Amino acid sequence: MTSNSVTGGRFITFEGIDGSGKSTQARMLADHLMAEGYEVVLTREPGGSKGAEEIRALVLEGEPDRWSAETEILLFTAARRDHLERTILPALAAGKVVICDRFADSTRMYQGLSRGDLRGVVDQLHELMIGREPDLTILIDMDPTEGLTRAKSRQTAEERFEDFGQALQDQMRAGFLALANEYSDRFQVIDGKGTLEEVAQRVTSTVKAHLS
Amino acid sequence: MTSNSVTGGRFITFEGIDGSGKSTQARMLADHLMAEGYEVVLTREPGGSKGAEEIRALVLEGEPDRWSAETEILLFTAARRDHLERTILPALAAGKVVICDRFADSTRMYQGLSRGDLRGVVDQLHELMIGREPDLTILIDMDPTEGLTRAKSRQTAEERFEDFGQALQDQMRAGFLALANEYSDRFQVIDGKGTLEEVAQRVTSTVKAHLS
Repeated sequence: MTSNSVTGGRFITFEGIDGSGKSTQARMLADHLMAEGYEVVLTREPGGSKGAEEIRALVLEGEPDRWSAETEILLFTAARRDHLERTILPALAAGKVVICDRFADSTRMYQGLSRGDLRGVVDQLHELMIGREPDLTILIDMDPTEGLTRAKSRQTAEERFEDFGQALQDQMRAGFLALANEYSDRFQVIDGKGTLEEVAQRVTSTVKAHLS
Repeated sequence: MTSNSVTGGRFITFEGIDGSGKSTQARMLADHLMAEGYEVVLTREPGGSKGAEEIRALVLEGEPDRWSAETEILLFTAARRDHLERTILPALAAGKVVICDRFADSTRMYQGLSRGDLRGVVDQLHELMIGREPDLTILIDMDPTEGLTRAKSRQTAEERFEDFGQALQDQMRAGFLALANEYSDRFQVIDGKGTLEEVAQRVTSTVKAHLS
């Protein structure tokens, strides 16, 4: 795939365990950059385009064992490809800042925990069909105990991805930190402790340094 | 993937241009083998399992340009993976004869015509996520003019895959014959001319030779 040829804008992703506040921080960053005159597209995964949202619904609804890990990876990759083509790449080509709540690192982390043997498949599939990595990935790192309390206060229909308990939250945090180490050229780990505004301040100064 | 490790039954696929009679011949072969005491599973693609049928609907409904070629290949591969896991491999493991109306060769042929540059991607994706080829592929070969007349007599909601006209039917025939040449170890080309019974006779004797 030749997706990497688009270089106009900047592609910034947010990652973090459930309840880390990444979605809120992504929105706050979008607001901040727009107030400064940047053209910003705020999006999310899984989903982020019309077709990808339909695939998201197909994956997340129904019985937990409805799809095998392999089929689920293919469906998420199909959704990501659609999202990339219809939302992300056109915005980048127009010179916009694309802020995305979760991207391929979430797939790598979740599959690494549940089916570590598939990590190679995940990477080969990404290489073959997506080919684009973010320019900057903000990992909101936080104490899993605190994250879990927050996550439980907003249960959704998709809670099967969130109902993991303390031990798994610990593993997810470790998984994300391992990815930050593996892709240290584009990851920035931000401390998620403190008020929303304090964390947002850390995010903003990191992103500003990247954009300038 | 390790799908090739299942060796119990026999996996027979039917391919051919629209109106070639392959679906009818697949059904007639299934009836014939069952009458002889074989345990047979008759299935089809895209679809063939509950999840795969849902993905099929997602791909085939809506606007023709709803999905890019790349996303469509990923969705079809997800459907094929589900079909393989839930329908084909369990039946083969139980020693049954699986007869499938279309399989990966259809994807190869259609993509070869519409986006020949993606043939490498199709093959890599197949290798990575499916890994299983049929033991025997019956190509019902016939004059496109005759095939087109038959296909037009039974228009369906999925006719966008069939409304191609004479020139494309010619190309599809040539595409299948090229695949038969490329995978000559498992392809058998059967002349589709004559009555249903005459063609069925040719199919049956070819399959019998393979099964014995």
